[in-house]
Amino acid sequence: MIRIGIIGATGYTGFELLRIFSRHQQADVKFVTSEQNAGQRYSQVFPCPYDAELIHAEEAPIKQADVVFLCLPHGVSMEMVRKVWDAGVRAIDLSADFRLRDPAAYKRWYGRDHRETELLKEAVFGMPEIYREQIAGARLVANPGCYPQTAILGLLPLARAGALAEPRIIVDSYSSVSGAGRGLTLTSHFVEANENLSPYNIGYRHRHISEMEQELNAAGSGPYEITFSPHLAPINRGILSTIYVWTKPEWSLERLQAHYEQSYAGEPFVQVLPQGQLATIAHVANSNRCVISLTQVRQGQIIVCCALDNLIKGASGVAVQNMNIMFGLDERMGLIG
Amino acid sequence: MIRIGIIGATGYTGFELLRIFSRHQQADVKFVTSEQNAGQRYSQVFPCPYDAELIHAEEAPIKQADVVFLCLPHGVSMEMVRKVWDAGVRAIDLSADFRLRDPAAYKRWYGRDHRETELLKEAVFGMPEIYREQIAGARLVANPGCYPQTAILGLLPLARAGALAEPRIIVDSYSSVSGAGRGLTLTSHFVEANENLSPYNIGYRHRHISEMEQELNAAGSGPYEITFSPHLAPINRGILSTIYVWTKPEWSLERLQAHYEQSYAGEPFVQVLPQGQLATIAHVANSNRCVISLTQVRQGQIIVCCALDNLIKGASGVAVQNMNIMFGLDERMGLIG
Amino acid sequence: MIRIGIIGATGYTGFELLRIFSRHQQADVKFVTSEQNAGQRYSQVFPCPYDAELIHAEEAPIKQADVVFLCLPHGVSMEMVRKVWDAGVRAIDLSADFRLRDPAAYKRWYGRDHRETELLKEAVFGMPEIYREQIAGARLVANPGCYPQTAILGLLPLARAGALAEPRIIVDSYSSVSGAGRGLTLTSHFVEANENLSPYNIGYRHRHISEMEQELNAAGSGPYEITFSPHLAPINRGILSTIYVWTKPEWSLERLQAHYEQSYAGEPFVQVLPQGQLATIAHVANSNRCVISLTQVRQGQIIVCCALDNLIKGASGVAVQNMNIMFGLDERMGLIG
Amino acid sequence: MIRIGIIGATGYTGFELLRIFSRHQQADVKFVTSEQNAGQRYSQVFPCPYDAELIHAEEAPIKQADVVFLCLPHGVSMEMVRKVWDAGVRAIDLSADFRLRDPAAYKRWYGRDHRETELLKEAVFGMPEIYREQIAGARLVANPGCYPQTAILGLLPLARAGALAEPRIIVDSYSSVSGAGRGLTLTSHFVEANENLSPYNIGYRHRHISEMEQELNAAGSGPYEITFSPHLAPINRGILSTIYVWTKPEWSLERLQAHYEQSYAGEPFVQVLPQGQLATIAHVANSNRCVISLTQVRQGQIIVCCALDNLIKGASGVAVQNMNIMFGLDERMGLIG
Repeated sequence: MIRIGIIGATGYTGFELLRIFSRHQQADVKFVTSEQNAGQRYSQVFPCPYDAELIHAEEAPIKQADVVFLCLPHGVSMEMVRKVWDAGVRAIDLSADFRLRDPAAYKRWYGRDHRETELLKEAVFGMPEIYREQIAGARLVANPGCYPQTAILGLLPLARAGALAEPRIIVDSYSSVSGAGRGLTLTSHFVEANENLSPYNIGYRHRHISEMEQELNAAGSGPYEITFSPHLAPINRGILSTIYVWTKPEWSLERLQAHYEQSYAGEPFVQVLPQGQLATIAHVANSNRCVISLTQVRQGQIIVCCALDNLIKGASGVAVQNMNIMFGLDERMGLIG
Repeated sequence: MIRIGIIGATGYTGFELLRIFSRHQQADVKFVTSEQNAGQRYSQVFPCPYDAELIHAEEAPIKQADVVFLCLPHGVSMEMVRKVWDAGVRAIDLSADFRLRDPAAYKRWYGRDHRETELLKEAVFGMPEIYREQIAGARLVANPGCYPQTAILGLLPLARAGALAEPRIIVDSYSSVSGAGRGLTLTSHFVEANENLSPYNIGYRHRHISEMEQELNAAGSGPYEITFSPHLAPINRGILSTIYVWTKPEWSLERLQAHYEQSYAGEPFVQVLPQGQLATIAHVANSNRCVISLTQVRQGQIIVCCALDNLIKGASGVAVQNMNIMFGLDERMGLIG
Repeated sequence: MIRIGIIGATGYTGFELLRIFSRHQQADVKFVTSEQNAGQRYSQVFPCPYDAELIHAEEAPIKQADVVFLCLPHGVSMEMVRKVWDAGVRAIDLSADFRLRDPAAYKRWYGRDHRETELLKEAVFGMPEIYREQIAGARLVANPGCYPQTAILGLLPLARAGALAEPRIIVDSYSSVSGAGRGLTLTSHFVEANENLSPYNIGYRHRHISEMEQELNAAGSGPYEITFSPHLAPINRGILSTIYVWTKPEWSLERLQAHYEQSYAGEPFVQVLPQGQLATIAHVANSNRCVISLTQVRQGQIIVCCALDNLIKGASGVAVQNMNIMFGLDERMGLIG
Repeated sequence: MIRIGIIGATGYTGFELLRIFSRHQQADVKFVTSEQNAGQRYSQVFPCPYDAELIHAEEAPIKQADVVFLCLPHGVSMEMVRKVWDAGVRAIDLSADFRLRDPAAYKRWYGRDHRETELLKEAVFGMPEIYREQIAGARLVANPGCYPQTAILGLLPLARAGALAEPRIIVDSYSSVSGAGRGLTLTSHFVEANENLSPYNIGYRHRHISEMEQELNAAGSGPYEITFSPHLAPINRGILSTIYVWTKPEWSLERLQAHYEQSYAGEPFVQVLPQGQLATIAHVANSNRCVISLTQVRQGQIIVCCALDNLIKGASGVAVQNMNIMFGLDERMGLIG
């Protein structure tokens, strides 16, 4: 059994981790922390059957765990990661703190200095489809953002093949409200979000662009010029990204389709839909799946649709997938494909 | 033109008043106040075309208005109502402060002393279907609660006729989330309310029982023994109450149906559905209508279903209906039937 | 591995069975049938990864299965159950055809003669909380209805204890739209159901009353006089029943709470919430849980709230629970508690 | 009073017309037709207070009307329009049959010959923002499509000014489910559409592209190369289009913003939001408003967001706006701005 700690367990990603672990044969959750709800039972915070007592992070018996999941805000997370690291315990950080390999990029997008640049060098970006081997040996995994994964998984085969005719990439995304967290904001008020669709931080402003740039440029044939338009949609789970790219003449739709299918052939959680089907949230909600579809607009112009559940494949599911890899388990354990 | 002031204009009922006044031929909104948003334009607070500047309530030029609508929390409202009264301006109070004629009942249900018991004597309970004449001459109208109206309109013909065989009344209600206001609570968080149904304050605990008791007992053949179960449903507008009563043997379904139709025959905003149709939210959303249906369970047992839009007929719409009556206008002006 | 067949696999309950079996360690789905979609792959009918080919029921290799699940309309199902029975294969019937032990009740509520009255004698009503032992030895399980389970689980401890002071029981229920099936009706049209709440077949008309009467009367101290008001709510999953009963003076709330907790102490999927918490859909969606809460209205009057996921504990989940019992497996296998 | 007939009145656009006419001071609805529901009262078809009897289209007393609204499928509509025309009565056609001035384009996109090419020459494309004068004198108005209006209103000032640096235009749109009509399809089933987002006919396949091309090319500086991606979102009303264009260097964001504001300064129903606000469905639902926002991505790249209520400004509202213009009424009569 893998002994697990969850720090910051009372947000949606923490709750989702508990849901996954409840059906994971090798998971033994040792502690769950919450600064706001310490002293309460978990079932008082969420309508659920998990009955563990919530403790303060500083009281967490870190050394009793084999791995600690951190579901904290960026900026706050890096300090806790340092503590876990110093305790010799492996960490999977769901914040953005260790996702950007370049501290200057962190400063540019997050508006603050990175205070753990040494640790940053140890972090592996937690996308198994790119870094499976490194994850296996990692002591610190930086779990990727939800939006970035749709863009990266949606474009990786194109980027690796150098198939884009121009650097222009447009990522138009709609996310569920859970992506904004359980904190109270007018934007997340039911009456404001329901029966509504709303863009926010569109253009070149949202921090998740930094992850897309890092990983797509690393995949080759960049640098790319990314436009990213996130929107809020009245659903509980899921992100759908509709991505516009322009491809080189030698990449026919058939060749692209075959290339995508081959690229993801061995991936347990990425599925390229056959021509004629388009990716939707219904394909992925409540699962660790990511589905991708390719549509030709006209010769040399392609639309990639990519969908995943932002709380699972976009966060807690891929975190467990990473844990499974780190501990040599079946990568699919506890996860719904 | 009737000169209008709205105090506490940035909640859902204030917004709804502005929406109604935008299509009311005799309304001239002179001022809108908000303690939280004073200094901003209204269109910065709601995504809407109303562009008035929000001011503090204490700066409100009350005397420039012919009538002031108060959309404030109970307890706070009574002081403002006193100011409006002292300025010689008519008031329509959407809070609960002047709904209960008995100060002792106010204390029992709202947990505080009523500090304006003299004014309380002047207040008219703002249900046109009961008090149309008194409203016409009123200087202070206590606008009724949303839940109570469903129970009162749903049962008034029964109570007046003395048709109930026993005092037992069960009111099972589902309300939209807007009924909980625009304030930020976990209950109103999109992800918590969406895909959920949840009872709250069920049994004999919700304050709105006091209005039901007051008006139904006053209508005759009481006192009644009310059980009231409010629930939250994932919709933006509307209340549906399913009401269980037991009737005297001489009241056949046909007689009841005819009695209800006759009782509301002259009412512009209450419709008794024909046998075979049941009241739903779709009948009433975005209108000032209240629809009622009668269903016989078995001899001597009736289910009354009653639906209205909690923000319109349940609050701002009936408030404007009251204003129209107070100022001798067509009662339907600005309102959708 | 248990070899499984699903007849009528392209409705919501069939889909849910496949979802559950995808994480069930002992399930080997041998065939899935659909009259409408025979010849297609399952993933063409639902946006999902299940890729089995759909065949006609008459081509189903029934004898290759250890158990067959039937997700067919009532009336149609009994013939197929006969075929499965004659093939010597165990059957779990999700239709209503074998739920009522009395053929006269079937005729009264379903408007047709029961044509398999001999088989009817073999059927066990599939609620493990009542018939666990009989299910273990059954060759034919009649899987219970979704609404009835909320009423039966919600009232069983009361009925067994003879705690009701009068026969009156009022069951006010709101169900998700999936309860109406995947067939196309105006009622299930998104625009009609969304932002709406609507009663239907209220009073003493809905067929599910027959199951409530059968099981509650069998539990003792009846007969009861049930009023049942189903409503449609704009959610994908779940039923919430708010149940009104009147209890004998000796049954204090504390005694009742203790009695309920004791009654369900050993049940893996029924949870009695502590005082202060009320049952909601959020407690149970996407799980095989049923949660129950007790609220005292006044001395001698109790509200029982009972929630479950209509597609899981209300249908396919309890069907798998029954299968697990029939085959001597851990009752919880594949199910989320 | 303007005497009005509605042919095909039992879809969502017909219902919306009746809602608008119920608060229009000069509207006198003379007849409503429905092939499917002829003989029924309107209130039996929709949960509403309109009580007119539905008749067959062929029984419609066309000559008793001053104007007839046709809410029929394309292909079917042109024959009825011919009848209305021959009766000497003005027609507002909500189908696509008279929107495309070029019969060859009609054939290409709708897959059939246009059978009323003479009448086609008489039709005026019903966007007041472009053709107000012609509408005033028109006997046949071709009411525009919902999606096209978002693209055309969103890009018209750019096209007229010749501000685009390249022909590339990407229109990414999300529509409410009511846009698909009241007919029964699996796509519109509540459980399928709810909690889902789904692309359909993306790229260069949706018929509405033809209207965008016609009007934007006519506005100047084309031809444009349009990519259009419609998606379905789980809401009852509204379309949000996020539109990507590339502009000439001399068009700074400030200049563009000023140009848009000036372009729509006199328009009663088009509002350009100030910088810092983005267009959302909440701005426009249940109104005849269209809101537009401009966002600069980087030098030379702009995102235009455009929102409207697909049933009102996108269909029945603009139809009434057109009627008001045709009959010399205040253009805003009956409409909510």
